[in-house]
Amino acid sequence: MATLDHVFQALSNPTRRDVLTRLGRGPAAMTELAKPFGMALPSFLQHLQVLEKCGLVRSQKKGRVRVFELETQPLRLAEDWMKTHREQWEARLNQLDAYLLTMEKETND
Amino acid sequence: MATLDHVFQALSNPTRRDVLTRLGRGPAAMTELAKPFGMALPSFLQHLQVLEKCGLVRSQKKGRVRVFELETQPLRLAEDWMKTHREQWEARLNQLDAYLLTMEKETND
Repeated sequence: MATLDHVFQALSNPTRRDVLTRLGRGPAAMTELAKPFGMALPSFLQHLQVLEKCGLVRSQKKGRVRVFELETQPLRLAEDWMKTHREQWEARLNQLDAYLLTMEKETND
Repeated sequence: MATLDHVFQALSNPTRRDVLTRLGRGPAAMTELAKPFGMALPSFLQHLQVLEKCGLVRSQKKGRVRVFELETQPLRLAEDWMKTHREQWEARLNQLDAYLLTMEKETND
């Protein structure tokens, strides 16, 4: 799934994660988003483009200002992938625990 | 958080995600893991090293064979990060919905 590749890739950078954290509190214009990072605007814009390309944010022009907003569907997709794998493995560990307990009980009986 | 950088980076590759899927069914030796990928062993080993370095898998030598196992704690860390941000944003959208409904009701009254 190419989408998962790009979503995880986008999330692997601390600046991009901080942008998502800020957008979790509400939409923001590019200049406002850029302020805390002290980064050249073209570099910052590249991070926003990575986030927009994989669907984690979307933007729209309001007059002369471009406003960015969080999009949760790709986060949910990535979250589901991880949850499924973690639960599958934890279930397996629980089965193993149960098996070892049975073995122990049989040995003691 | 450097750990999150590395975990998300590791998850952004389909071969590495497939390895985790396989390990979700139980531990496996390197040669067994490599089999479905038809990839040169040194390249495959690099993927395993990326997974082991960020803690998503751990390995131990059993006789002459190195056996790999899934480690769920980093998955949980990344999952929690995404869940927090998704829920924060969804809660904000719900508040906005409630506000708009109130406004609509007041306009109709």
